[in-house]
Parts: sequence; C-alpha cells; structure tokens
Amino acid sequence: MLHPVVLSGGSGTRLWPLSRHNQPKQFLSLLGDRSLFQETLLRASRLPDAQPPVTVCADDHRFMVGEQLHGIGLASGGIILEPVARNTAPAIALAALHVVDRDSDAMMLVMPADHLIEDEASFRSAVERAWAPADEGWLVTFGITPDYAETGYGYIRRGGELVTGAYRVSRFVEKPDAATAERYVAEGSYAWNSGMFLFRASRYLEELGRHAPAILAAVQKAYAGKMSDLDFTRLPKDEFLASPSDSIDYAVMEKTERAAVVPVSCGWSDIGSWSSLWAVAERDGDGNLNQGDVISVDSTGNLVRAADRRMIATLGVDDLVIVDTADATLVARKDRVQDVKKIVDRLKSEGRQEHLFHRKVYRPWGNYDSIDMGERFQVKRIVVKPGAALSLQKHAHRAEHWIVVSGTAEVTCDDRVFELRENESTYIPLGSVHRLRNTGTEPVELIEVQSGSYLGEDDIVRLEDVYGRS
Amino acid sequence: MLHPVVLSGGSGTRLWPLSRHNQPKQFLSLLGDRSLFQETLLRASRLPDAQPPVTVCADDHRFMVGEQLHGIGLASGGIILEPVARNTAPAIALAALHVVDRDSDAMMLVMPADHLIEDEASFRSAVERAWAPADEGWLVTFGITPDYAETGYGYIRRGGELVTGAYRVSRFVEKPDAATAERYVAEGSYAWNSGMFLFRASRYLEELGRHAPAILAAVQKAYAGKMSDLDFTRLPKDEFLASPSDSIDYAVMEKTERAAVVPVSCGWSDIGSWSSLWAVAERDGDGNLNQGDVISVDSTGNLVRAADRRMIATLGVDDLVIVDTADATLVARKDRVQDVKKIVDRLKSEGRQEHLFHRKVYRPWGNYDSIDMGERFQVKRIVVKPGAALSLQKHAHRAEHWIVVSGTAEVTCDDRVFELRENESTYIPLGSVHRLRNTGTEPVELIEVQSGSYLGEDDIVRLEDVYGRS
Repeated sequence: MLHPVVLSGGSGTRLWPLSRHNQPKQFLSLLGDRSLFQETLLRASRLPDAQPPVTVCADDHRFMVGEQLHGIGLASGGIILEPVARNTAPAIALAALHVVDRDSDAMMLVMPADHLIEDEASFRSAVERAWAPADEGWLVTFGITPDYAETGYGYIRRGGELVTGAYRVSRFVEKPDAATAERYVAEGSYAWNSGMFLFRASRYLEELGRHAPAILAAVQKAYAGKMSDLDFTRLPKDEFLASPSDSIDYAVMEKTERAAVVPVSCGWSDIGSWSSLWAVAERDGDGNLNQGDVISVDSTGNLVRAADRRMIATLGVDDLVIVDTADATLVARKDRVQDVKKIVDRLKSEGRQEHLFHRKVYRPWGNYDSIDMGERFQVKRIVVKPGAALSLQKHAHRAEHWIVVSGTAEVTCDDRVFELRENESTYIPLGSVHRLRNTGTEPVELIEVQSGSYLGEDDIVRLEDVYGRS
Repeated sequence: MLHPVVLSGGSGTRLWPLSRHNQPKQFLSLLGDRSLFQETLLRASRLPDAQPPVTVCADDHRFMVGEQLHGIGLASGGIILEPVARNTAPAIALAALHVVDRDSDAMMLVMPADHLIEDEASFRSAVERAWAPADEGWLVTFGITPDYAETGYGYIRRGGELVTGAYRVSRFVEKPDAATAERYVAEGSYAWNSGMFLFRASRYLEELGRHAPAILAAVQKAYAGKMSDLDFTRLPKDEFLASPSDSIDYAVMEKTERAAVVPVSCGWSDIGSWSSLWAVAERDGDGNLNQGDVISVDSTGNLVRAADRRMIATLGVDDLVIVDTADATLVARKDRVQDVKKIVDRLKSEGRQEHLFHRKVYRPWGNYDSIDMGERFQVKRIVVKPGAALSLQKHAHRAEHWIVVSGTAEVTCDDRVFELRENESTYIPLGSVHRLRNTGTEPVELIEVQSGSYLGEDDIVRLEDVYGRS
C-alpha cells in the first residue's frame, strides 16, 4: 500500500515578508486558497490506494500542520515532530519506521511540502512508472525534465532503462555553472533533482543502515523513545540530536547501487523565490501577477500582493516584486529577489521580529492579531477555535477587557465561570486568574483591550494548560 | 502694519496617498514635524511688525486649520471660510475686506499655505525690498529666480527697476514649452510666478474694482452677509458663488498698470509632486529620502515613506517613490509621479474612498481610526480633545463598548452621566442616547468596539451638537 510522506522542513525566508520563521512557505496560500502543504496532501490522497499521509515537521509548526490538515478535512496518517532539524535522511528514516510499524511492506512516496505541481496527471503517471522498480527494491527518485538551464538545482543523469520510463541513476551532480547547465539541458539525459522519492520503507532503512549506519542507529533509538499525543508523535530530543545531519541524497541515494530515476514533466516548481512564483503563475495582459486589492497604471511584469484591508497602487513600474503584509512591505527588483535573505539577515542582526512572526500569531487554541498599540494599552483580535481553551493564567502588569464579537465564550475569572455571548463584555482585573474557552461549535472572536504599564507577551503565569505549556 | 494672509486652497491629489481630499498637502508634515501650513504661519509671524495671520480656507478644512494653528500656539488673525472655491482673486478680496476692516492702511502679504521656503533670510529681505513700491501703491509679486527650465510654472518678465531689487512687470507668460523655458532661464530677466504678493489691501480692492468689478461686487456682498463664529468668519454661499471664479493673475495682475516684481532666490518649492519633495529634501549617501521605518538594501535615488507601526524594505530598486499609509501604498517611478492623478481618477470612478479620507479621520472634537473590522463588528481608536464633545447621538443598528485607555471621559448614556477613567469601560446599548465628552485637560483616548448588523458612519441621529451638525 502507498503511504505518502510529506516533509514539512525548511524555515523558508526566501518569500519574506509573507513567509516568516513560524509560518514558512509550505503553509502559505500563494496561488489560490490552499497552501502548498495542503495541495501536497490532497495530491497524495488522490493517488490510487493512498493511505492517510504522514507528515514530518518541526515541533514549532505542529499546530499549523494540525490546523491545515483539519482545514481540508483529510484523515492523517500521523504527524511526526522533529525536536530539531537534522535534514532529510533522518526525517525520512523516522517516517519509514512509522509506516513500517503499520505495514511492513509499506511503499513510501516522499514529497516535500512546499512544491508546486501543476500537471497532476503527469505526476500520477510518473508514480505509476516508478512502482515496478520500487517494488523490486529500487530507490526511485523523480527527475524533473528541465525547461531551461537552471543553476540553482542539482541534476541527475540517467543510465540504462530498467522498465519503460524508469532508469538506473548514472550519477548525481551538484548545482552546475551556467555553461554546464546549458550542456546538461542540451544533452537530454539530465533531470532536476526534485527531492521526491518512491521506495519501500524497509528498503530505505536497509540502505540507510548500509551507507549511514550512525543515522539509522540514532533514529531507531529516538523512535523507540517516542511518545504519542493524539495525532502527534514526539521524540526525545537528545537521542534525535545524536543523529548526524545529512540529506537523503548524500547519505543514501548517491551511495546505493539501487538508485533509479523516473523523469517527469509535470509543471513542477519549488517556488524558491518571488520571481519563480511570478514565473509559474497566470498573469494579466501586462504580465502582472496582481493579488488582492491592486490598482496598476502603466505597469508591467510585476508581482504585487496586497494585504487584507489594504490596497497597493503601482504607476509606471516594471519588473518589481511588491509584497505587503500587516507589518512589513517588500519592494524589490524581480531579478534581485534571491537577496531577500540580506533583508532577513538585517532584521536578525537588529534583533527585530519581522522575520520571526506575522502580526497575526497562530497558537494551539487559535490566533491573535495585535491590531493597535499605544503607550499603556494594546488591542488584540483573538480567535478561539471550537473546543479550544487558552491556559488558566494571570498577569502581573495588565488588566484586560474582553468584548465578544462572534460566538460564545466560556470565561473563568477567579471563582466565577460564566458565558459571554456576542456583544457582551467582561473585565479581567490585574492579577486575577482567568481562562477563555470555546465550548461551542463556531469560532469565538473577541476584542481584547489590555491596559497596563507593561504589555509584553512574557507577562504571563500559566497555571494550567491543555497544550502542556504551563 | 503687515497682515499676513495664508491661502489654504487646493484639494491636492498630487501627493496621494498621503494627501487626501480632506487632508491636502498644506496640512501634511512632509519634512520635519510641522506641516507646510504651520511653517508658512510661523514664517509670516516672524516678519517685522507682523500681525496675527489671516487664513482663507475651505469650510471642510476649518477644524484642521484650527487644530494646526493651536498646535503651534499662534494667535490667529481670523479664519475665513470659503463656502465654495472660486480661485484666488475672490479669496484674496475676502481677506482684503477682512483686514481693511481692522486696519484701513493694512499691508497684505499673501502666501499660499503649501509652499516650502528654505532660506527664510532671503525671503525676508525680498519682503523688505517689496515694501517701498507696495507702500507707493504698487501690487508686488515675488518672482522666483529659476534654477532650471521648469515647464510647469508661469514666468514673469521684469521691466525697468523701480527701486533697488524691485522692477516693473514687463509681462506675465503662461507655462512655456521646454525650449522657451530654456531661453527664459538663459535670458536672465524671467522669474517663476510664485503666487506670493505684497500690496495694500485697499489698493488690491481698487484694482480689482477696476479690472474685475463683478468679482469685487459679489465678494463685497458676500462679506456684508458674514457671520462670525469664534475665530471663524462664515459667508453666505449663494452670494459668494455669484462671484466669477478667477485667479489674481488673470483678474488683476496682468491688467493693472502698477504690477511690480521682486526677484528672489530663497529655496522655494511648491512641492508639486513626490519627485519635487525628493529633490528639495536632504538625502542619504545613496540618494534616498527614507522617512520612518525603512530598510534599504542596494537601493538608490528613492523616496520611501513608511506609515506608523509598519516597515518598508527595498531591495535593488532605484528612482522609485514608495509611500505607505494605513490603507494604501503607492509604488511609482519617480519620473512618473505627475500621473498620480490617474490613480486618483481611477479611485473616483470606482466610487472608492481612498482619495477622500485617511483611515484616521479628523473631526471637530478630535479623531478616530478604524483599526479593525469584521462581518458584524468594527473597532475604532477614538481621541477626544480637552474640552471637546461628540454630539448627543443614537444609533439604530449598533451597540458600542467603550474602554478608556488614557485620560478621563464624561459619558452620558440615557439618564446617567458618569466619569470613565483609564482602564474603565462602559456599554452603550443599541438605541440609547449617548454622548462622550472630555472635560479634562489631557486628551481622552478610548477603544470603541461596535457590534451590530450595520456599521456605517451614516447610522447616526444627532440630537445636539456643539459644532452645529445636528
């Protein structure tokens, strides 16, 4: 049976300011309503005989993963939380151990969470072509037939044909220079290394044990110490940290005798930058990709993305990337967007927050958005998911006013527990022990006005927390 | 005695999105903390023997004018409200009648409210040079010695010298084409028509009566029907509307035998576009004028202005204008900013609001900012000035929650009148008659959460209003 495994790694700063440390590329809705992660899950779920997909992600992203899975109503094959990032070889090993536990014969389809595939039929037929060699014990990688001489990807050269449309790997090559890339494309036997794989879980573990035994040993030890928590699988940090950090390519694919490649042309993109998003998107007659409330006058070849409740007007500008969010706007020349990292580095070095979080912050119980702030006050819009609850908590320096604007909240304030409906308010005095809970079936939305001398997120004492944060 | 007259006309869309219909260029702080209007008032007040300045402005802008006058603590010589715009000849006639009432011998220095003068000493010495001819009955205009062959201004050619540094006007010329402008600049006897004048009020009225008697008659009739209201002089609309609409140049200066010009070079600019603001401002080593929270990487020659609580990052872009506000951002090529009008026209034709108001709206009693909005709620930050009060009012479709975050408010809610201090809240039920007043000496700042099925500004019944709006 086919077990899709979605790797949600990477902290993606290349799409800043839309991507942030706590909300990387795979969780963004870049084209259409769904995120790349959601599209990847859905694509996997539509494959024949596909089991519920397994996700491997950073511990930090567990609630975002849970929420996005829930958002598309898909059954989950489990969410494995990496306590720390160790690259793809250990991550895939965790997933292999996880699926082998359920199905000793499991076939794994490994897919990065942040890739775009426009032609799903071609992708499916590639998976079909890969099946026979994978069934015979080959580790099959998918090689993207190159459209142009990209220097930012590694290439795979194919060797002899195994079955129709599937080949031995002749060799893996590093990111080439421009002339070499041109030669590869002209030559015809090279494909881009996409990071997608099909193989039996047991075969991957075998080959990993042969070529990178330290990784296998560490991952096995970590996996043996796992703790299950609803849909989440947690791992002991020290044991996982003991694994060398390495990619599947270096650790296994380049070393095994049984590497195969299935070339495919399926409208693939890793959306590695704003310019590649522009390149794959449908654009208007002036070559603009305008998303949101945009007025464009005498402007061509731009990517313009407006934030909620805001408009962007462009006048006489060409080949720019303009991306707006609640707290930061990027204006860049389209052929310079690979240097967005320079801006993120500047933010880091200045100790700022705009590369870490959006103004709207996701929490296990929902989200909050800091909509206004003054010298001694802050206003937040808070959304609590059905069934969710904030921790039982108190603050040393602020009082809070809560006004429910939709749904019904259950409020605990010291000894009292009461309901607060739309258009009702309450006051949480400084120092009182309080909790906000949504016992209903619709989201609760409320406006919180904080008043006090210090309003930092760290002024919180958590007395009880259903998410283990107290 | 010298009576400065500041003309605050013009609805200024050329600096959109910072300038809006209800907050044109003269009221903006473009360079430094004070607005061009405030700088003009202060410059006038520093002239020898200057009386408190008289302002002529649109009725719509009266509270902004009052607040900006108050903000610099300057005594006012009166604020004349034009019920409708009729160009400069009638506006200056109103001011002339106003100052002649107080001082029959009054000398008027007419200044547009939205010009920048960097070299105040040169300006003062020009006013001194103009004094003698004005005293003898000449109507003196100030001609700016051109720095370059601008085609966007009218020019004045000087004739024979009257006294040192003051000349008869030989002729006024319309905006020239580029070659003609070059010739004017090379020739040396031409100056830009700045729209600043010095003359006796009585002499202006005489010459107006001679060359444009219909204007004088209509303005006199309107002025005779004036109503005084604190510092404001209001005029009957129909009478003022009866005046032909014409500029002082066409109506008087080009016709009188007694037109003089005083050439001056005083770092003058009318800041007619974002590019001219960039041109006059001090820029960094890369030629950028960065205002607010801006991170600039490999970018040169830009004007970048970030809004409150927001940052802008530029990467590899040159010669752009990027202006951010709470609800709209402009990105334009610097040499195309004269076409900002095209965007404003688009907003008009689409029935939008972004050319009319900022998200933050000024009212006689203070201001409000719509900081968040949802399907059935809206959140505003409201500031009430000391001594000010909102109207006694009620709403048919919304209830309101008020939380004071600084200052002390006096609240009327049906039969109750009570004080609300920082960190206190109250609830205004749907349909109840309420008022918010600031009886203290510090501004009151409060957060209002509106809840209801319809949240438009027009759901208001005003029962009493100190500003005559009920």
